[in-house]
Amino acid sequence: MADTISSTISPEGSLEILSQQEVNRLHDTSRTGLHELLRSCALAVLNSGNPTDDGLALMETYPDFDIEVIQQDRGVRLKLTNAPAEAFVDGRMIRGIREHLSSVLRDIVYVYNEIQTRRRFDLDSADGTTNAVFHILRKAGTLKPSHDPSIVVCWGGHSISREEYDYTKHVGYHLGLRELDICTGCGPGAMKGPMKGANVAHAKQRYREGRYLGVSEPGIIAAEAPNPIVNELVVMPDIEKRLEAFVRLGHGIIVFPGGVGTAEEILYLLGILLHPDNDDMELPVILTGPADSADYFKRIDEFLVYTLGESVRQLYRIIIDDPVEVARVMRKGIDNVSEYRRARQDAFYFNWRLTVARDFQEPFDPTHETMASLALHRHQPVHELAANLRRAFSGIVAGNVKERGIRLIEANGPFRLNAEPELMARLDDLLTSFVAQGRMKLTGEYEPCYTLN
Amino acid sequence: MADTISSTISPEGSLEILSQQEVNRLHDTSRTGLHELLRSCALAVLNSGNPTDDGLALMETYPDFDIEVIQQDRGVRLKLTNAPAEAFVDGRMIRGIREHLSSVLRDIVYVYNEIQTRRRFDLDSADGTTNAVFHILRKAGTLKPSHDPSIVVCWGGHSISREEYDYTKHVGYHLGLRELDICTGCGPGAMKGPMKGANVAHAKQRYREGRYLGVSEPGIIAAEAPNPIVNELVVMPDIEKRLEAFVRLGHGIIVFPGGVGTAEEILYLLGILLHPDNDDMELPVILTGPADSADYFKRIDEFLVYTLGESVRQLYRIIIDDPVEVARVMRKGIDNVSEYRRARQDAFYFNWRLTVARDFQEPFDPTHETMASLALHRHQPVHELAANLRRAFSGIVAGNVKERGIRLIEANGPFRLNAEPELMARLDDLLTSFVAQGRMKLTGEYEPCYTLN
Amino acid sequence: MADTISSTISPEGSLEILSQQEVNRLHDTSRTGLHELLRSCALAVLNSGNPTDDGLALMETYPDFDIEVIQQDRGVRLKLTNAPAEAFVDGRMIRGIREHLSSVLRDIVYVYNEIQTRRRFDLDSADGTTNAVFHILRKAGTLKPSHDPSIVVCWGGHSISREEYDYTKHVGYHLGLRELDICTGCGPGAMKGPMKGANVAHAKQRYREGRYLGVSEPGIIAAEAPNPIVNELVVMPDIEKRLEAFVRLGHGIIVFPGGVGTAEEILYLLGILLHPDNDDMELPVILTGPADSADYFKRIDEFLVYTLGESVRQLYRIIIDDPVEVARVMRKGIDNVSEYRRARQDAFYFNWRLTVARDFQEPFDPTHETMASLALHRHQPVHELAANLRRAFSGIVAGNVKERGIRLIEANGPFRLNAEPELMARLDDLLTSFVAQGRMKLTGEYEPCYTLN
Amino acid sequence: MADTISSTISPEGSLEILSQQEVNRLHDTSRTGLHELLRSCALAVLNSGNPTDDGLALMETYPDFDIEVIQQDRGVRLKLTNAPAEAFVDGRMIRGIREHLSSVLRDIVYVYNEIQTRRRFDLDSADGTTNAVFHILRKAGTLKPSHDPSIVVCWGGHSISREEYDYTKHVGYHLGLRELDICTGCGPGAMKGPMKGANVAHAKQRYREGRYLGVSEPGIIAAEAPNPIVNELVVMPDIEKRLEAFVRLGHGIIVFPGGVGTAEEILYLLGILLHPDNDDMELPVILTGPADSADYFKRIDEFLVYTLGESVRQLYRIIIDDPVEVARVMRKGIDNVSEYRRARQDAFYFNWRLTVARDFQEPFDPTHETMASLALHRHQPVHELAANLRRAFSGIVAGNVKERGIRLIEANGPFRLNAEPELMARLDDLLTSFVAQGRMKLTGEYEPCYTLN
Repeated sequence: MADTISSTISPEGSLEILSQQEVNRLHDTSRTGLHELLRSCALAVLNSGNPTDDGLALMETYPDFDIEVIQQDRGVRLKLTNAPAEAFVDGRMIRGIREHLSSVLRDIVYVYNEIQTRRRFDLDSADGTTNAVFHILRKAGTLKPSHDPSIVVCWGGHSISREEYDYTKHVGYHLGLRELDICTGCGPGAMKGPMKGANVAHAKQRYREGRYLGVSEPGIIAAEAPNPIVNELVVMPDIEKRLEAFVRLGHGIIVFPGGVGTAEEILYLLGILLHPDNDDMELPVILTGPADSADYFKRIDEFLVYTLGESVRQLYRIIIDDPVEVARVMRKGIDNVSEYRRARQDAFYFNWRLTVARDFQEPFDPTHETMASLALHRHQPVHELAANLRRAFSGIVAGNVKERGIRLIEANGPFRLNAEPELMARLDDLLTSFVAQGRMKLTGEYEPCYTLN
Repeated sequence: MADTISSTISPEGSLEILSQQEVNRLHDTSRTGLHELLRSCALAVLNSGNPTDDGLALMETYPDFDIEVIQQDRGVRLKLTNAPAEAFVDGRMIRGIREHLSSVLRDIVYVYNEIQTRRRFDLDSADGTTNAVFHILRKAGTLKPSHDPSIVVCWGGHSISREEYDYTKHVGYHLGLRELDICTGCGPGAMKGPMKGANVAHAKQRYREGRYLGVSEPGIIAAEAPNPIVNELVVMPDIEKRLEAFVRLGHGIIVFPGGVGTAEEILYLLGILLHPDNDDMELPVILTGPADSADYFKRIDEFLVYTLGESVRQLYRIIIDDPVEVARVMRKGIDNVSEYRRARQDAFYFNWRLTVARDFQEPFDPTHETMASLALHRHQPVHELAANLRRAFSGIVAGNVKERGIRLIEANGPFRLNAEPELMARLDDLLTSFVAQGRMKLTGEYEPCYTLN
Repeated sequence: MADTISSTISPEGSLEILSQQEVNRLHDTSRTGLHELLRSCALAVLNSGNPTDDGLALMETYPDFDIEVIQQDRGVRLKLTNAPAEAFVDGRMIRGIREHLSSVLRDIVYVYNEIQTRRRFDLDSADGTTNAVFHILRKAGTLKPSHDPSIVVCWGGHSISREEYDYTKHVGYHLGLRELDICTGCGPGAMKGPMKGANVAHAKQRYREGRYLGVSEPGIIAAEAPNPIVNELVVMPDIEKRLEAFVRLGHGIIVFPGGVGTAEEILYLLGILLHPDNDDMELPVILTGPADSADYFKRIDEFLVYTLGESVRQLYRIIIDDPVEVARVMRKGIDNVSEYRRARQDAFYFNWRLTVARDFQEPFDPTHETMASLALHRHQPVHELAANLRRAFSGIVAGNVKERGIRLIEANGPFRLNAEPELMARLDDLLTSFVAQGRMKLTGEYEPCYTLN
Repeated sequence: MADTISSTISPEGSLEILSQQEVNRLHDTSRTGLHELLRSCALAVLNSGNPTDDGLALMETYPDFDIEVIQQDRGVRLKLTNAPAEAFVDGRMIRGIREHLSSVLRDIVYVYNEIQTRRRFDLDSADGTTNAVFHILRKAGTLKPSHDPSIVVCWGGHSISREEYDYTKHVGYHLGLRELDICTGCGPGAMKGPMKGANVAHAKQRYREGRYLGVSEPGIIAAEAPNPIVNELVVMPDIEKRLEAFVRLGHGIIVFPGGVGTAEEILYLLGILLHPDNDDMELPVILTGPADSADYFKRIDEFLVYTLGESVRQLYRIIIDDPVEVARVMRKGIDNVSEYRRARQDAFYFNWRLTVARDFQEPFDPTHETMASLALHRHQPVHELAANLRRAFSGIVAGNVKERGIRLIEANGPFRLNAEPELMARLDDLLTSFVAQGRMKLTGEYEPCYTLN
């Protein structure tokens, strides 16, 4: 039985004053289900000291956990029942966690009220979706008008080797020495290392306003709980809006080694940058890892060049085993972003100019039918091929590791793809190399879940 | 020809980051008319050094004035063309005025978007209206959850004597020494004096977070432009929401001498406090002025006691010529408000518990018909009589000094009221005393605009 | 019998932690007399609401007043017995006054310990004296290394007309709009007006770090108590060091109308600026007043030109009845000071480069002998003549209004001066004009206290 | 050849404005030698990224390094020639290091001016010495009157095992979660771990005012350079004043495993606490380490009980392998310190009440003569025995590892002690156990440098 504490706390930080209607809505569990969502996200945040991959297990560990919102003299209070004891120090909740609770509350209320209930934005259009992303981030106080560009988005795996983790810390350290801020998806591994490194460097530079942004969503927050170092937490409503938040907030992107998901994120990013509207877009992208991880990026690089052409290399830079160089190149790149936006009178805090095609805003649901209909050949514009490859990739991942995908394969046999044979072979090779590097979590032998039509 | 300056400024302070849609809407003059509203309010704010009673005249003085919103690198810029030179010091806009411009922009955008376009609140219900008031104030950053009660709302006339003006400064000074904050309706006279006094006292107390709230609305902002000392400006959409903002924000209310409008405000306030739901409400109300102004409150007091009964005196206290006592009583009263709300777990920053009946949220449109149908007798609950008296009062004022009212009288003769004769006589007396005190702006002789049926 | 309060307070602000030795020294009244000095200065500060010209009367009004220093848990406490009630609001001392008490304590301890007891500086040399001035100001936290030049020293009379007082407020207001800070000698009149004006302007500009420096000394602090707006108070050990503090701290000097003392200050200032070593010194000096006061400066100007030559006019500018122009010229002048010091790598916070000749650091004691030996002719360098004129001037003032001077004249007849007759006549004229303008406080007819040898 | 950078920097942080005399004195190398001292300390601080045990080697690595003080427009500048490149990031000095340079400058100037040149304090008396310590700390801004007790002094070895180092980090982390601050002697190992741990915890608690005090002295600063996390650095003039600074500043003391020096520090501390004047002194002392280090404290504990009696155990608590418990006990202990001092009206920021006997302020110079004259028996008050044991201990250490001590032994044979045989045997055992644990840095076999007379 896990240790728990019951307590009434004052939500510190970004929580706005709620109207009585809003407070009532948070109570109202039966009709809207908002309470259950709040409860699970709150539990995830409270459990940040003991991360688990499994949101369900978490709810089972704390079956009696509950959270209630109370209106009180100086504002709102949160009444917690049977909360994880680790969130407290000698009976007082860690302040970083208290702030995260407020953020969770704020975002859930806002998304529910504005996005879902009032349908304030046309989520079927690209513009409407971007607008929704903008408003959620604005509400969260994430858009700071007076700030120079400084946000480095870091992507990469959650379960990486010790060596890789230490490398992400070193990169974060040297970014921090250059007064750059870190934005990740929360959670351990490559999401935590850069923040820890930057935190030490910011202390040395007496850079007190250092930003550690965590951008999460309800489906993953339990598995990838925000480390309390995160001092700005935003809970986006779904995966696609979370990805869009990254590319519109970030002034530069660093990709550390990861698993298959990381490769998919690279395809997402390149698919956007290859769009003709983004031709002259300034957005520094660096792929980097320690010496022993060089092969991961080498394989990805080869695959990208084969499928998307040599020119794709202009969109990213691979730097192996050199944290100082990574930080220098990123600092220079972000200085270029400043100039670029200033010249065009663009906002620093949100990349309005970036075109994110509708494909990248919609989730892809991999089935035998959708997989079979993907156009996997090079007789199409590269950004469309990138979009299709990303989908194929996503489907293959699902077929191997996601419950729904695995069942589909069991029921109907492997996905049948219509692809150029050479392209197919390259994809096979890439995935096999991931398996060899231990980057795919498999139970049993790896067996491809697709075949060529 | 007035001196003007054209300049592009960065809106300082409370202006939030705007989305491209919001920026576009501000440009869009033809369809929504928002631009014209923004232009006139902005001009009022820019002209705060040279107050005028006449918004129209102001627009004629600066016929070429224009304001445009531009999206730019670090946020939004305001492009001003031919703005009043007095808003600038050596070519740079006074920062307080820059903040007011931001506030105006913020409130107009918000009210237009949320209240008018989206119809987010049900303005036909009391709850919906209160909610709208709450949301406008919240958006403006006026609701501060961690603040102890400290807001003293000051009402009174705009064109008062030098002696009365100095008295309001002294009261403000002694409130400020007790670390109380001031909220007024902006403009000169009793609206400005308390802020000036408090500003000096706050400096002496090194009370740096002193609040000087101005609550205005588009119809009066030109005539009652905010003094730049105001460091929080809110533009409510209309007079009734502005009044509701005062009574829900304020922790205590001081009424200085004024004209007929001030008497009407007193009736508004007592009408609310007399409502049975507000029976035990804690809200200190003080009527105060220098020795020579004692008669003004004496007459009002007599009229109130006659019409609403002796017990009405429990709702306010009259203090003549004693600023220190006013400040002490108010400080004590506000301490009681703190206790009262704490005991009931009410919010400090917004008086949710106060019942404002629907009558007080709706404007009264005085015509011969509506005036004739008012129930002006004492055989009804006092709070209803107060509401009716306020309406009668409002109609009489209109019939004497407002354009539309004067025309109605010219066309159809005096309003014919159905009232108890004694009550009517008392009302006559009260108005006559105002005339005698020089508190009614009349052209020519005073002639009652009403008669008893 | 004056209202008093006894209370133990925590000295807010600049008071440093004291060692046990230092605390003991403050207690120790009999041996060092420090306690009596502290007691009288503390009483002056506490009485700032009710200024009086007479320190002795003050001590008689509060004969039982006492102050004691106590070492306590979080630092030092001051135990006050029978202190003036006006320093308190509802039993709590006004914070500005609490800070002033700390400043008084700090400076008296420091001067006593370092300057008097330890003889840390050679006060018989110009360098040693300047060093002492520097160390007292540094200890007081007055020297701010990161600040751009902004300090305008304001001189002028304490008992000036309402019109002149209002004019000093307007000048202060327009200086404040330009984010300039005010430094005066504390007290009422021209010492208080500029601060009040600047305080309002700083509020409008949201210039929160506005500085209101008061530079006093024990002999005058009772008569010229610091207004609580003063947020940095320094008590220099004597008049000469106080004057040196003004010219080394200030980045520009404004002289308002005053009495004879003001004229003497002008001679002090010009005497320094005329020194050949200060030939290229950048220090804007403006003499200004409302239209009705134009004659005061006209007469002074004529006298200066006659005695010191036409070129003296390059050192100051007279501006009549134009506060905006005064503020603009001063702002521009102070910008020049910035450039000047930057070019020479001089400190912004202390004018080391200014030569203050030894004569100006030493008090002049007017007797028949010293007066007779003054060289009052134009066959000497102008800066020496300025020094001698200042002395003559000082002696004449003493002979007219100071107790010791008056007694000397009574005993030995008028001072006998050795002067050029024309120069003498001019001096007569100037003094007569002051009398005519009501700028000399006389009992009875004015009768010159000197004659030509 | 090491990378170097030449640059002129502005000393950030605590450096006060210097007078021209003070600047001159810093230049003046020949007469006072201050420049050489400044140069070596500055180099140590600049080299903090690459700690070395050897100050001499450091000077040889950067033979051309120089530092010069320049007076400039906004204050003082430091001109660095051929400084270690590691102190810079892309040509700009790390701000933490810039602050440390300022601290070094400040303390060297102050100590030289006040303590050495002016002989402001009587360093031959206990009171005078304590006063000097107080003034140096006050000048450094280390004494914060409004702070609640929170300073945990951490002692322990510089070259400890990875496991021990990680343990110190964990302890620091749990202290930091309880908003306690860390004070160490600077350098690596047990001096750095607690600060790193606390820094992470402070970030989680959003405790922005976290203090990381480093107290160093010129003789060790090269070998134990301050980590840039240290945000308050004080350079005391010698080892004894540094130790006194620790015990007067600290509100609690934690001792981690270390070498012989750490044992000597424990004797210093207990020697003071055993003094009858300190009988009821509240000062929590915890000896702690990971499970594998339990033996170190076990042996020390046995030796202390044998020599000083069972009651010595009331002065400290040994906690093995439980960082949370250490932090809880320390938090509780420091709360007791608050109560204790409040009850006695003692200052929080400096432990005036603690008696430090003159023996503990004077360095012990071990020679054959002084060692032979030590009274090493139990027929004396325990605090005197503790003082003598500490001296014996210090001499033994010197005889084994310090150059001067080793030469004395080579020349004259082992020190001859006059001691009780059993006590001697216990001391032998203790030292032997240190050798066995690898805690003594020896070249060759361990051979006792003393013998019993």
